[in-house]
Amino acid sequence: MQNLVDKINNKILSLHIPAHPAGLYEPVTYTLALGGKRMRPLLTLLGYSLFKDENEKSLDAAVAIEVFHNFTLLHDDIMDNAPIRRGKQTVWSKWGTSVATLSGDVMQIMAYELLSGYEPSLLKRILPVFNHTAINVCEGQQLDMDYETAENVSIPDYIKMIELKTAVLLGTAIQLGAMIAEANDEDTRNLYEFGKNTGIAFQLQDDILDVFGEAEKFGKQMGGDIVSNKKTFLLLKTFELADEATRAKLKGLLNEKDEQKKVKEVKEIYHRLEVKKLAEAEMQQFYSKALSSLEKVNAPAEKKKKLTDFTNKLMKRDN
Amino acid sequence: MQNLVDKINNKILSLHIPAHPAGLYEPVTYTLALGGKRMRPLLTLLGYSLFKDENEKSLDAAVAIEVFHNFTLLHDDIMDNAPIRRGKQTVWSKWGTSVATLSGDVMQIMAYELLSGYEPSLLKRILPVFNHTAINVCEGQQLDMDYETAENVSIPDYIKMIELKTAVLLGTAIQLGAMIAEANDEDTRNLYEFGKNTGIAFQLQDDILDVFGEAEKFGKQMGGDIVSNKKTFLLLKTFELADEATRAKLKGLLNEKDEQKKVKEVKEIYHRLEVKKLAEAEMQQFYSKALSSLEKVNAPAEKKKKLTDFTNKLMKRDN
Repeated sequence: MQNLVDKINNKILSLHIPAHPAGLYEPVTYTLALGGKRMRPLLTLLGYSLFKDENEKSLDAAVAIEVFHNFTLLHDDIMDNAPIRRGKQTVWSKWGTSVATLSGDVMQIMAYELLSGYEPSLLKRILPVFNHTAINVCEGQQLDMDYETAENVSIPDYIKMIELKTAVLLGTAIQLGAMIAEANDEDTRNLYEFGKNTGIAFQLQDDILDVFGEAEKFGKQMGGDIVSNKKTFLLLKTFELADEATRAKLKGLLNEKDEQKKVKEVKEIYHRLEVKKLAEAEMQQFYSKALSSLEKVNAPAEKKKKLTDFTNKLMKRDN
Repeated sequence: MQNLVDKINNKILSLHIPAHPAGLYEPVTYTLALGGKRMRPLLTLLGYSLFKDENEKSLDAAVAIEVFHNFTLLHDDIMDNAPIRRGKQTVWSKWGTSVATLSGDVMQIMAYELLSGYEPSLLKRILPVFNHTAINVCEGQQLDMDYETAENVSIPDYIKMIELKTAVLLGTAIQLGAMIAEANDEDTRNLYEFGKNTGIAFQLQDDILDVFGEAEKFGKQMGGDIVSNKKTFLLLKTFELADEATRAKLKGLLNEKDEQKKVKEVKEIYHRLEVKKLAEAEMQQFYSKALSSLEKVNAPAEKKKKLTDFTNKLMKRDN
């Protein structure tokens, strides 16, 4: 797996990123060098490899997905006022919002540049798939912002939001790999479902780690979701299960200005109502759904195993 | 010409823009309904019509260019703090910067969606052209921001900046029309040069109108370039021609807080040094260059005339 990550990182390093204007391109280089798990491009390569014995041809699409993902992070971090990402300053907090906006814009175009190299008939098939998902991701981000102030967000609303904002891109990452490998429509569709449901499980895991993970491993502001009153599965489930008194206490905590106190006391309520376990069960459910889609895919068992070795590890990560 | 504008507006009206999430899509509808001259999509249709007797097939590309252009306006207006556009509130000032960022992002994807409908071989040829210009536009915006604080901006620097930020998109607008009409490479290249140099002339005209136009016709904040110390051709030329005393006075005015006084006194200096005439001469020079590229294009004279009737009018506009 490290070989594949190296391959992705080498491809990213080989991207032609001009030196000027530095204000535009420095943040692009900075962002792409921050690394991260490279989960999405790995899914593209692994999706391709299910049907072929190498993965060369899927590398451009893999990196297109990663560059697109990083573009969304630049813009999301502005909107969410996030100071830290992958243990480093976010672009807007380092260079300002104008820079983060424009460098994000150019990264979005770079993603399309990477796709534009595929042969005509393949390009014609992958471009609409990519566009559709890119639009879904924007819709997900909008819902995420809407839910900050919305009164009645349900757990299904929340799941739909993370599906759009996060999960569909994982689905499309693996789907593009399969399409480039000329997989048939049914296999391609099942792989999309596999990736999407893995993505929902992944985001639920992320929400759990935001509260219960270890700061130095996670590389983001700890308890950030609690501080910002983010209506995650954990918070929504707590409101659902809490008695009158706890609900009143929780409502009070939403307005608590002392961040440390707020995180500590909300966590105490989460512990008491055991919502972590419930979130983990929800996560398992989506991951099982993912695996049952993968089972239907016509590809050699040992190749599928390589894929599930990777996603199983994602489900057990601590960062 | 009004027929063509109607055609473009009808196509824009027929775009599938979902109702939800409203926070994402309302600003898209608002922006596209603001209208404007539709100069870029008109160039695409006219470029196509040079070689064919209708223009149907170029309509999607025309609207892709217009949607892309409007996306850049949304983001530029955030970065430039611009309150008014086409006589109406800008998206960020009406809905906030997060909305303007994200709605801009989705419009960029919509532009690619429109292009993705072309047949494989054509898509394969137009996508890299579009990407290249889209990246140029971002570079131009970055240079524009860099020049706000840069000490030594020359007139050639300024011309290069407006070439990237504004002119190349006009070049590509007409170029895509020609490519879709299967024009040969030489004609396509000459049309790009025609559009690009027309675009530079157009921007110089825009700078002149910002200072000397009539507020109610122009639909933007008047004298905005003077207020923000924008290093336009007018200001740079004035610094070049001014004597010591005038230069000192001008430098003082750059820090003047009273906006009305600032605009009035800078305009007086512009009048005294007759830089308006020099800007008009510069504009004419680029437009002549544009016309000489058009002359080389192998297309019927009466069709070229339709195109120059349109661009001649652009050069004489008062808004």
